[in-house]
Amino acid sequence: MTIVTSVRKMQAYSERVRGRGKTISFVPTMGYLHDGHFRLLKEGRKRGDVLIMSIFVNPTQFGPKEDYAQYPRDMRRDLGYARRAGVDVVFAPTVDGMYPDGFQTSITVAEVTKTLCGPFRPGHFQGVATVVAKLFNIVKPHVALFGEKDFQQLVVIRRMVRDLDMGIEIIGVPTVREKDGLAMSSRNKYLNGEERRAALCLYRSLMKAKKLVRSGERDSKRILREVHSIIKAEPLAKIEYVSLVDKETMKEVKKIDKKTLLAMAVWIGSTRLIDNFCLP
Amino acid sequence: MTIVTSVRKMQAYSERVRGRGKTISFVPTMGYLHDGHFRLLKEGRKRGDVLIMSIFVNPTQFGPKEDYAQYPRDMRRDLGYARRAGVDVVFAPTVDGMYPDGFQTSITVAEVTKTLCGPFRPGHFQGVATVVAKLFNIVKPHVALFGEKDFQQLVVIRRMVRDLDMGIEIIGVPTVREKDGLAMSSRNKYLNGEERRAALCLYRSLMKAKKLVRSGERDSKRILREVHSIIKAEPLAKIEYVSLVDKETMKEVKKIDKKTLLAMAVWIGSTRLIDNFCLP
Repeated sequence: MTIVTSVRKMQAYSERVRGRGKTISFVPTMGYLHDGHFRLLKEGRKRGDVLIMSIFVNPTQFGPKEDYAQYPRDMRRDLGYARRAGVDVVFAPTVDGMYPDGFQTSITVAEVTKTLCGPFRPGHFQGVATVVAKLFNIVKPHVALFGEKDFQQLVVIRRMVRDLDMGIEIIGVPTVREKDGLAMSSRNKYLNGEERRAALCLYRSLMKAKKLVRSGERDSKRILREVHSIIKAEPLAKIEYVSLVDKETMKEVKKIDKKTLLAMAVWIGSTRLIDNFCLP
Repeated sequence: MTIVTSVRKMQAYSERVRGRGKTISFVPTMGYLHDGHFRLLKEGRKRGDVLIMSIFVNPTQFGPKEDYAQYPRDMRRDLGYARRAGVDVVFAPTVDGMYPDGFQTSITVAEVTKTLCGPFRPGHFQGVATVVAKLFNIVKPHVALFGEKDFQQLVVIRRMVRDLDMGIEIIGVPTVREKDGLAMSSRNKYLNGEERRAALCLYRSLMKAKKLVRSGERDSKRILREVHSIIKAEPLAKIEYVSLVDKETMKEVKKIDKKTLLAMAVWIGSTRLIDNFCLP
């Protein structure tokens, strides 16, 4: 396994790989890997001759009051994970390498960022779209894989790739959960014992919604009411949003159909968790 | 010479060319070619194994009150020009092909667009950056050439390419002028006889500034005063802006140095002309 930190060297490497007619699959991460990433890497391993993973905690996608400084980092552990997953190259650039003096370009995906996390994290998806475009131009993948846990992010990337004709296949990989249902996330590390138990209310509420829809309920308001009441019963939880949206346009829907996504952001103490479920 | 209108086919063609280890040089245009374009194509011909030119009047870089509908078009004449210049492929996509339903992504280059044309043409450089990024992703060039007549555009593209790690060499090609000094532009077609003569005030004022600087003048205010007075002496001319800026940052300068650009936009009747000169 090779570790590359230089943008130029990564670009030259990928250019050579493509020149030999080989395909590149790519898993961009912010490190502190968990089994959700492992699943992405396993999928990626199948889909390209060369598997590249990036580790980069991207400052531009964090708001000024968000957890950029505290975001968990553990390069040694991540490299072990990558090796076991069969990664060929880890690309781990520096912040200065990615954003040299004078940097001033950003990519905006306008419509699909208007709901869910968009309004609560101004600039977040702009930061995500811009860094992913950079990573794509550096790593030059044929295929890139993203977790469905960050469903809106996946939609933003897909839209950007299509709109800018990037010619990269984007694959969404299902959320991996702990045994009790909590969606895996590097941010779960922030939770203490009590909060860890409280965090289950997200999954419980998603399951309840699923059950309602399976039993025939199609009215968004009634489903949202049930979801809200489950989360509100948990004293440590504070809802940021719970929404039912079309899973392509990210627009809110009044009636559930087969393209509906239930998505939520909930604070557990000082940790912000997101989760979602495709309904029905 | 091949003419391609499909985005997918163009992309596949360029992928094949690159796969064979050949280099691609690219000249994006809005058509209605003149000798300025011809010079770009001649330069492009030297710099790549395959020379691709695009013709696309891009609606998103025109403001609602600008001349998108009237912009001159003459595909047959353009194809003759391209053939004589040794173009291998003309890429001429449709508006729907470039901006299908649901399109919503844009690229902003923030700082270098704050002066000169930026404030007078809101959204223009966003439209330019976005369409050029798309064209780059479709045509996959190693080298792309742009005219220095649109100097700020050249700076915007250079900045975007560097910031997004596009790995494309951007080459600026000097402005081509008519015998009497008028910078070549497809928009010169809008000028009637009287306006055509009036339009010379741009070049005259640039030459005057050059002379002043050559004779030792370094004070921006004094140079701008002279330039203004020459243009104002022409009754058909109306100044939009005249500025002295650093030719990389596009920031206004008080003192002339070897990185200074004198740039202007002047209305001649209902035609907006731009011109510039690198000083001294």
